Amino acid sequence: MSELNLYVDTQYASPYAMSAFVALTEKRLTFSMIAIDLGIDENHTEAYAETSITGRVPTLVDGDFSLSESSAIAEYLEEKYPTNAIYPKQLQKRARARQIQAWLRSDLMPIRQERSTEVIFYQAKTQPLSEQAQLAAQKLFRTANQLITIPSEYLFEDWCIADVDLALMLNRLILAGDDVPERLVAYAKYQWQRPSVQLWLNQKRPLL
Amino acid sequence: MSELNLYVDTQYASPYAMSAFVALTEKRLTFSMIAIDLGIDENHTEAYAETSITGRVPTLVDGDFSLSESSAIAEYLEEKYPTNAIYPKQLQKRARARQIQAWLRSDLMPIRQERSTEVIFYQAKTQPLSEQAQLAAQKLFRTANQLITIPSEYLFEDWCIADVDLALMLNRLILAGDDVPERLVAYAKYQWQRPSVQLWLNQKRPLL
Ligand SMILES: [Ca+2]
Ligand SMILES: [Ca+2]
Ligand SMILES: [Ca+2]
Ligand SMILES: [Ca+2]
Repeated sequence: MSELNLYVDTQYASPYAMSAFVALTEKRLTFSMIAIDLGIDENHTEAYAETSITGRVPTLVDGDFSLSESSAIAEYLEEKYPTNAIYPKQLQKRARARQIQAWLRSDLMPIRQERSTEVIFYQAKTQPLSEQAQLAAQKLFRTANQLITIPSEYLFEDWCIADVDLALMLNRLILAGDDVPERLVAYAKYQWQRPSVQLWLNQKRPLL
Repeated sequence: MSELNLYVDTQYASPYAMSAFVALTEKRLTFSMIAIDLGIDENHTEAYAETSITGRVPTLVDGDFSLSESSAIAEYLEEKYPTNAIYPKQLQKRARARQIQAWLRSDLMPIRQERSTEVIFYQAKTQPLSEQAQLAAQKLFRTANQLITIPSEYLFEDWCIADVDLALMLNRLILAGDDVPERLVAYAKYQWQRPSVQLWLNQKRPLL
């Protein structure tokens, strides 16, 4: 097996770096992390542009192949290392997991702006949600309630990588002290106890 | 085979509806389109919330299963109907196609804001690019130049769905009259001639 390296941000605060980290950890793969400092534009160096193509974190380097975008990384790991599945096996459920991942990466912008992941990883203080962000929160709650359909601790029968992404979005609000329906709080808390998630939460972070 | 329906926007101006339409067309699948008017919030009805979960277009309905997010729809179609591939077969190229799709859906926001797809589908007039959008355009050009590595009309040996998405992003600028490197103009023009793309371009659109 070739050497695996994951480029992450120095603060371990990127939700997408977290998602890729959890995917690798759930796969029981041995990998190293290389932290780059977005604050001083280390992602804009020529070397990192070559590796990442888009200058973003996370980027996975697997031997002579490098790949960015956490959802693409998760799919790649699932295909190359199928043991310890991170996506549902069933076609429709796998499709739904992908829908959830894509949606969380492209919608709910007001929540992402007003509840940065520094709330989650640095207990940052926040202002009350704007009206726009409150509307986005209502959409998140309605959607999450519709998605978590079975009386289960997960979206589907078994854990999958979309559970981490959905829990992270909910925790932007929960950990800021915003009102979140109890059922969704329980769901997010349960995801947060997962060892692969705890391993990310417990990374030694520099002061902001 | 169950009945396939694709929910799109009334203006046929959503780049993601276009991507799903092209995916279905490339698969040579028979499907109907149902246009919903985002201008009068038809995507916020309870019925559409139930179908789409997230209230977005496109949503594919395949028998009793419905799915939104164009990248999830493309993956679902590829898995359920493997004939006429829309993703590369080779692991690393498929991964790169997914990276490109995910990147185009989550980055380059200033271009998406200042060069809405009305530029493409309605020849809308535009203002000069802001400084932020110019920086995003430079990033797009650098990235596209790095991605189109082989002297080919496509990203990879064969056409794939990511070619449509990348060409659409380039065409936001090209069709607005912005300066775009000649090589990338040639690439985008070539993608635009594809019959599945032409079929979308030639949809009868209501006046704005
Ligand atoms: Ca890469
Ligand atoms: Ca369970
Ligand atoms: Ca759906
Ligand atoms: Ca070729």
